[in-house]
Amino acid sequence: MTLLADLLSTVFERRARIGPILRRDPRSTEALIADLMAATSETAAIALARRILQRYAEMDDDTRLGFFRHVAEACDLDAGALREALGRYEADPSGTTYRAFIAASEPPRQELIRRLNNVPGGTERLVQMRADLRRMGRDEPALQALDLDFRNLLRSWFNRGFLVLRPISWESPAHILEKIIAYEAVHAITSWSDLRRRLKPEDRRCFAFFHPAMPDEPLIFVEVALTKGIPGSIQALLAEDRAPLDADEADTAVFYSISNCQPGLAGISFGNSLIKQVASDLSAELPGLKTFVTLSPVPGLVRWLDREGIAWDASDRKAMSSLAAHYLLNAKRPDGQPVDPVARFHLGNGAMLQAVHADADVSENGLTQSGGVMVNYLYDLGRVEKFHDRYAETHEITAAQGVKSLASARDKRAPAPAPASA
Amino acid sequence: MTLLADLLSTVFERRARIGPILRRDPRSTEALIADLMAATSETAAIALARRILQRYAEMDDDTRLGFFRHVAEACDLDAGALREALGRYEADPSGTTYRAFIAASEPPRQELIRRLNNVPGGTERLVQMRADLRRMGRDEPALQALDLDFRNLLRSWFNRGFLVLRPISWESPAHILEKIIAYEAVHAITSWSDLRRRLKPEDRRCFAFFHPAMPDEPLIFVEVALTKGIPGSIQALLAEDRAPLDADEADTAVFYSISNCQPGLAGISFGNSLIKQVASDLSAELPGLKTFVTLSPVPGLVRWLDREGIAWDASDRKAMSSLAAHYLLNAKRPDGQPVDPVARFHLGNGAMLQAVHADADVSENGLTQSGGVMVNYLYDLGRVEKFHDRYAETHEITAAQGVKSLASARDKRAPAPAPASA
Amino acid sequence: MTLLADLLSTVFERRARIGPILRRDPRSTEALIADLMAATSETAAIALARRILQRYAEMDDDTRLGFFRHVAEACDLDAGALREALGRYEADPSGTTYRAFIAASEPPRQELIRRLNNVPGGTERLVQMRADLRRMGRDEPALQALDLDFRNLLRSWFNRGFLVLRPISWESPAHILEKIIAYEAVHAITSWSDLRRRLKPEDRRCFAFFHPAMPDEPLIFVEVALTKGIPGSIQALLAEDRAPLDADEADTAVFYSISNCQPGLAGISFGNSLIKQVASDLSAELPGLKTFVTLSPVPGLVRWLDREGIAWDASDRKAMSSLAAHYLLNAKRPDGQPVDPVARFHLGNGAMLQAVHADADVSENGLTQSGGVMVNYLYDLGRVEKFHDRYAETHEITAAQGVKSLASARDKRAPAPAPASA
Amino acid sequence: MTLLADLLSTVFERRARIGPILRRDPRSTEALIADLMAATSETAAIALARRILQRYAEMDDDTRLGFFRHVAEACDLDAGALREALGRYEADPSGTTYRAFIAASEPPRQELIRRLNNVPGGTERLVQMRADLRRMGRDEPALQALDLDFRNLLRSWFNRGFLVLRPISWESPAHILEKIIAYEAVHAITSWSDLRRRLKPEDRRCFAFFHPAMPDEPLIFVEVALTKGIPGSIQALLAEDRAPLDADEADTAVFYSISNCQPGLAGISFGNSLIKQVASDLSAELPGLKTFVTLSPVPGLVRWLDREGIAWDASDRKAMSSLAAHYLLNAKRPDGQPVDPVARFHLGNGAMLQAVHADADVSENGLTQSGGVMVNYLYDLGRVEKFHDRYAETHEITAAQGVKSLASARDKRAPAPAPASA
Repeated sequence: MTLLADLLSTVFERRARIGPILRRDPRSTEALIADLMAATSETAAIALARRILQRYAEMDDDTRLGFFRHVAEACDLDAGALREALGRYEADPSGTTYRAFIAASEPPRQELIRRLNNVPGGTERLVQMRADLRRMGRDEPALQALDLDFRNLLRSWFNRGFLVLRPISWESPAHILEKIIAYEAVHAITSWSDLRRRLKPEDRRCFAFFHPAMPDEPLIFVEVALTKGIPGSIQALLAEDRAPLDADEADTAVFYSISNCQPGLAGISFGNSLIKQVASDLSAELPGLKTFVTLSPVPGLVRWLDREGIAWDASDRKAMSSLAAHYLLNAKRPDGQPVDPVARFHLGNGAMLQAVHADADVSENGLTQSGGVMVNYLYDLGRVEKFHDRYAETHEITAAQGVKSLASARDKRAPAPAPASA
Repeated sequence: MTLLADLLSTVFERRARIGPILRRDPRSTEALIADLMAATSETAAIALARRILQRYAEMDDDTRLGFFRHVAEACDLDAGALREALGRYEADPSGTTYRAFIAASEPPRQELIRRLNNVPGGTERLVQMRADLRRMGRDEPALQALDLDFRNLLRSWFNRGFLVLRPISWESPAHILEKIIAYEAVHAITSWSDLRRRLKPEDRRCFAFFHPAMPDEPLIFVEVALTKGIPGSIQALLAEDRAPLDADEADTAVFYSISNCQPGLAGISFGNSLIKQVASDLSAELPGLKTFVTLSPVPGLVRWLDREGIAWDASDRKAMSSLAAHYLLNAKRPDGQPVDPVARFHLGNGAMLQAVHADADVSENGLTQSGGVMVNYLYDLGRVEKFHDRYAETHEITAAQGVKSLASARDKRAPAPAPASA
Repeated sequence: MTLLADLLSTVFERRARIGPILRRDPRSTEALIADLMAATSETAAIALARRILQRYAEMDDDTRLGFFRHVAEACDLDAGALREALGRYEADPSGTTYRAFIAASEPPRQELIRRLNNVPGGTERLVQMRADLRRMGRDEPALQALDLDFRNLLRSWFNRGFLVLRPISWESPAHILEKIIAYEAVHAITSWSDLRRRLKPEDRRCFAFFHPAMPDEPLIFVEVALTKGIPGSIQALLAEDRAPLDADEADTAVFYSISNCQPGLAGISFGNSLIKQVASDLSAELPGLKTFVTLSPVPGLVRWLDREGIAWDASDRKAMSSLAAHYLLNAKRPDGQPVDPVARFHLGNGAMLQAVHADADVSENGLTQSGGVMVNYLYDLGRVEKFHDRYAETHEITAAQGVKSLASARDKRAPAPAPASA
Repeated sequence: MTLLADLLSTVFERRARIGPILRRDPRSTEALIADLMAATSETAAIALARRILQRYAEMDDDTRLGFFRHVAEACDLDAGALREALGRYEADPSGTTYRAFIAASEPPRQELIRRLNNVPGGTERLVQMRADLRRMGRDEPALQALDLDFRNLLRSWFNRGFLVLRPISWESPAHILEKIIAYEAVHAITSWSDLRRRLKPEDRRCFAFFHPAMPDEPLIFVEVALTKGIPGSIQALLAEDRAPLDADEADTAVFYSISNCQPGLAGISFGNSLIKQVASDLSAELPGLKTFVTLSPVPGLVRWLDREGIAWDASDRKAMSSLAAHYLLNAKRPDGQPVDPVARFHLGNGAMLQAVHADADVSENGLTQSGGVMVNYLYDLGRVEKFHDRYAETHEITAAQGVKSLASARDKRAPAPAPASA
């Protein structure tokens, strides 16, 4: 038991330990950064890193922007040195020349980020720091480069092998649950009672990925409903007065909401792994489950209809579902992939387009973005690889016959706009 | 409790999951590697990576050497492409050009290793793989480079922020304890009873670093004795019939053995952090502890004496301790650091040379390597930074007056050989 | 880790296992009880016990009352047999005669309850069952006796040695926290935000006793505020806009609310242990804490004032606190103990009456019962034993000089009513 | 996580807390007992109980015997008071009279034991105390009665609902494993390597019952081998050089050793529950398991053969197994149950006698007690209830046809001795 108790206490301690406020240091932040890069002692390096992280925490946005610009510039790549090291390695490939090449091939910014990460609790701070950087630095090339340095390291630290899938339930710690409420991005959770309805009933599940260095922060989570048959309306699925199903009687697992929690981990994808691992775990737990399917919005639909000048009426279910099917199958980006971002995500994962439902999400958001339409993407575990490969190679969309028929019904009425217009 | 239960089960599952033996695949290992590098689907990539790791596990040494050579060559850096990407980035520094530069700046080998690491249990396999690589590839420049790629990634994954310090006690799981027995490198543990004597008594402690991705494998561990006063003999310290001290009465913590466990993590240093965190944790737990000190071998002493042609007699305590003090203070490498590797380690951590004891380790190993001499390096938590910096800058050794006197006693008798000879 | 993982899974499993609904059994409940008492096989006994518990769960109140009456009568003590067994034991005291005496000395009801408890999850059911019994059976002698049988066994199972003190925090599982909201009996928790304010800030703590056989059910909990100095107003203590104190700066721990959670454990006292263990744990964690004190209501005050025909005005702070001090020190029951139940509890634990505050609880409840008055009982860990013994022997109330002065200020104005009238 | 962390720390703390050695107290042990029985304060009671337990720990056997005699006498039942209380309850059955009856119906010894149990760590001490009592007090009626008081309370505290089944594996804590080595009573474990062979291979399992108040002490454990087919030799089953079976390929679980660990819990039976829960858990984990069977000694065989004057030769397999079958089926105690204690245990649990093997245990112990014979008792989960009931009512032994034939082969040769002679 000692091992675990200690693992726990270490984790707690870690969160705590960054806390104690350090006394003022007369050095400028720039000087602290220079000292950190020069430090040879690990203890000194950690002390400096803590001080920098604490100072960063107290900065306002303008000062943070200055901080990023300084780091981007002062710790930039030395192209000359790299060219030289590369030449030496080519001339005489050895451990020594390769070591020198590796050192020269990355800008000191990356080593700076690594050293900041050595502070207990540092990882979480760096994820927040990158969220700031992305918010403020989108348009500055130097900051884009810095963002890529962050991404490079974070991608390494948050690799799939270190992620832990945890069920989120009504027995989870409240400080985690309040984050689920805050991060739910698709169908807002309005209160603790609402959350309870999503977690407590036997036919509801939720799963999140966590990383050991940020045990209190979910990275991404998915909400699942266990049903009989494939549902076509989110309001029906979440109705307060519905009677819960006995989990053993369910034949379908519906992924009705997936939320990324950390803007600071943008560009590092977890959703694909999450869906597949949850599907695999659920099918082991409940052998009665035969169908794994999403109930997804079509967030680009209304924008596209408006851009194309196509009139529409959310209450005309037949026309609306035809329009949506047409849009999903035919509206493409220049690279040949669908305009719709949710479609790109699930099709890219190897799902197929199973069904289109009009009048399926009558919330304000659902009407404004998706014209009330929702879609089921089917994860057929036996064919997911095949569909993925086909989509990856040709961008061919695998769709059920019903969806194709809906789309062609539309196509007969009015010719589709050319994909190039998307 | 769900969170933890799940964390546990995930960890267990992970170890288990790599297990199931895959059916034969007709593709060659080279083809599998090529397919893995080309894979766009995460699921496909993980399946390929598992297959490669399993195939590796079944290879004999020769085949492994071939495997390493293939990886080193087939996934080598493309210097031309890198030069080009660097040029473009210099000409037009932007997110896009920098992204291309990053991609070109590392050899595909690193991405290969990353993809192998995505397999549950992959990290442990890669650590073992690198141990093989280092054992077999020392003298081949291409394999040295490959080793540096491994080191680069492992250093990132095993960064200090992800390590967990765990006490090892008689209540620890047996499968961990048998590894402690196996890995103890300084003072061999001869049996489970011997282990029990090192762990069970109230005045004995042991701590190890673990990494969440390898929960069953200690990375490094230190054995500690709690004593009254600073001890000068390892046999006395470990005597079977000694009466254990009440932990509250101890004033000194003696680090008498530090063992690295993973040859595959060579070059990634944990010892410094370990000693300092253990010292800090122990002083929080037992406020009576005032002194943190090692009882260390002098493993280079006999070799040096022999090389220098200096006669010696382990039973002449006075002469022997003078010789050892002299050796530690004056025998230097060309770079100005001490010849003795243990001295380099502790002095580099900021410890000072506190005392030298002859007749302190009468084991065969102790006599053969250290002439029976042992040394206390003192970790004075308040001055460790200062000593570290001084040593880092000037290689000046901080030593207690007693040690200096011992050395000069020797120096008066016979002039020291010139450092250059070391 | 296996041990713990298993302990956890066992606990979870246990809750689950009572669940599966059994198919109908044609036997009457009376017959099931008879069969259970006659069963020789443990497996058969557990199956019968499960069936009885399940049937009980489905009964309405009237049927439950009938169930209790049947058990009380059908499994009553056999006085004749007991007398005989006692006689035999007196005549020939031996293992054999004593074993027979023990068997005869308790009514079969107790063995019935024991056998029901062998079902996983049975303990929780029996606690609920007793809550029903107490609610419905207060006035029937036979049911009072049955209640004492329950109490006798529950007191044995819930003995102090088996209780586990657990901190309740914002990191506790939501299904535990919703019980804290439901069970808070002194100062109602109105929402999850209100709960968060009681748990999250660094200067707030909460602790509960749990029993391993009912891991999801707190038995009793206490809410604690860490303060500088002794507070005199609950509204000030719980103000939404207060600035939290750094825990290390607190010198006082205020027990401002203690709630029993299980009516089915009435008559089995946990409060005394809880306060003392929490005080001891807190003083170990925060050495700065010097004072352990309650902020308690005076729930009998208004009723007593009305009964005595004493006019009072909650807004006259001086008069009100004099009246309260007088009441606490002088209003006694025939047995010599104070009329006020909260006073009896804390004084009986060895606390002293430290201070009386008027205008201290202006909630409706605070005004209606306590006339707005609150009281600090001081737990002086060094003198708690002495005060307890003094109170136990003589019912002498230890009070601070200030309280005595307040009371005598009142006494001078108007003679106290005779204690006998209380 | 807090809940668990705390549960753990509570458990650890508890073990620790009894430790601190109390300063001498001038009172006699008799006076301490009297004070404990008179104590009204829980804190004082716990302090007194700790002191008594500590003093007991320091006593030698003679003093302990005196202690037991004193407790047995000084806290004996007051038969007169009981008779009076019983009379009053009969005359006027009410809560009040019943409460008084309950108080009078048990000797104060039981309350004394309850109060000793309130000390953290007390339960373990009381179990040890009873082991001493049973060892020394077998022949004194007063101590037999005291033993029954202990048993009565321990039976209540160790009821099935509070037991936790835990797998014991090579990953279990060493301090638990060393107890498994020490307590193994059937087939001695000779070393840690031997233990490893019993726990580590995939086809070996071990399970133990624990009680939350004694988390470091297994109560009973069973060792299981997973096999193909039913084995007939313990040496073959435990052979060092055997090739482990893949767990998924096993069709049979063999309970080859069951050891009670706590002599202080004699008369409180755990074996029946253990076997059935393990069988149920294993069959859930490994659906391929179809047969649950023991490989058991016949410990009364040689004694019985000698007493009956029957010559025997362990190397004559045919004759020996006939003799053993005959003995098991026909050698009965006056109460109609088999003479063999292991047979009584398994048949009483509802197992059937499946097979008899000569030359099956050639260890010294196996030859001396069982003439080398071993037996399989089969737990047929679907029929275990029926067999139990049949055995409980009529003592009829259910045996496989093969065993009956063996026995009748013997019977034909020589008529069985009359059961009365057993």
